[in-house]
Amino acid sequence: MHSAPSSPPPVRGPSDHDVRDQIVEAATEYFGRYGYEKTTVSDLAKAIGFSKAYIYKFFESKQAIGEVICANRLHTIMAAVDEAVGTTASAPEKLRRMFKTLVEAGSELFFNDRKLWDIAATSAGEMWPSARAYDEHVRALVTRIVRDGREAGDFERKTPLDETADAIYLVMRPYVNPLLLQHNLSGAAQATRQLSSLVLRSLAP
Amino acid sequence: MHSAPSSPPPVRGPSDHDVRDQIVEAATEYFGRYGYEKTTVSDLAKAIGFSKAYIYKFFESKQAIGEVICANRLHTIMAAVDEAVGTTASAPEKLRRMFKTLVEAGSELFFNDRKLWDIAATSAGEMWPSARAYDEHVRALVTRIVRDGREAGDFERKTPLDETADAIYLVMRPYVNPLLLQHNLSGAAQATRQLSSLVLRSLAP
Repeated sequence: MHSAPSSPPPVRGPSDHDVRDQIVEAATEYFGRYGYEKTTVSDLAKAIGFSKAYIYKFFESKQAIGEVICANRLHTIMAAVDEAVGTTASAPEKLRRMFKTLVEAGSELFFNDRKLWDIAATSAGEMWPSARAYDEHVRALVTRIVRDGREAGDFERKTPLDETADAIYLVMRPYVNPLLLQHNLSGAAQATRQLSSLVLRSLAP
Repeated sequence: MHSAPSSPPPVRGPSDHDVRDQIVEAATEYFGRYGYEKTTVSDLAKAIGFSKAYIYKFFESKQAIGEVICANRLHTIMAAVDEAVGTTASAPEKLRRMFKTLVEAGSELFFNDRKLWDIAATSAGEMWPSARAYDEHVRALVTRIVRDGREAGDFERKTPLDETADAIYLVMRPYVNPLLLQHNLSGAAQATRQLSSLVLRSLAP
């Protein structure tokens, strides 16, 4: 479940992996309690009982730890979306489930941990690799669903595929990007249904 | 151009109106230079050369002054939108112009005055009367354009009018609400075009 760090994988034994995991786990809990922005690597080291230098052996910065936490959460959301989409063959239904699950899983994973949310916001605001990968995954999934729907005769084919997929992504973006979702949480479930219906009307052959 | 205060109009001579205007004008400049959140009524009074008590004779709070400034700006945006929409008879073109002008005028009026933006954000975040009135004006305009387009045979009539108008408003909201627009400024012009096209496809009869 833990994504690889962005630096090339160092040659380390499995126990080093365990230490990385241990740091990430402790950091998730610590950031979750005291907030990401307010915490320093020193605070974190003290809390885990490691030296600061030892943590820096595994992560080059606080952001590198935050990035792994963020990547893990986004990975969990995408896994939930892929699962929800995978259980139906109908492209219109895939689109509805994709949007619904993105909003539900995103709200739950970031907003039930209010303190962890600032990692997601920083990540989305600064376009960390995890946030970019998440964006690209969502875009690619939209494109695939639209293509499938066109092949099945469910969706119109006049509009260029890229244009259609880009515009649908733009409709979803305020509910997918954690930085924007915070402003759209109230009424998000109903908004998601209404916007899915509008998108499906726009796709009618 | 200046909207009425939300409290019942006091019985005052025309010179009181002039004083109100003078305070609003000075406050617009002062907030624009030092920021709304950071400024107190005392700071403002000192800058204008009035006593704090004298300002409180005309406005019950700093928010009451901010509310008039905000209402004035939103009024200017809506006037620009109404004008842009009024110069065409075609409902699809009205919808495009409405969205485009909302984004352009909104960006210009709030973001060229970065320091004034926090009034708009506070207003949208706390749903001041001016922000609510603006929202309702936008919603009403969307409903009117969709109704006109249906009557002219440009738009489909199967979907309930309210449902269609609500969903279109939701598509526009991230670019209309100043709190959200700040996150969507980059690429807003292209996004507006793509979303207008998607909305128009959804309205096809």
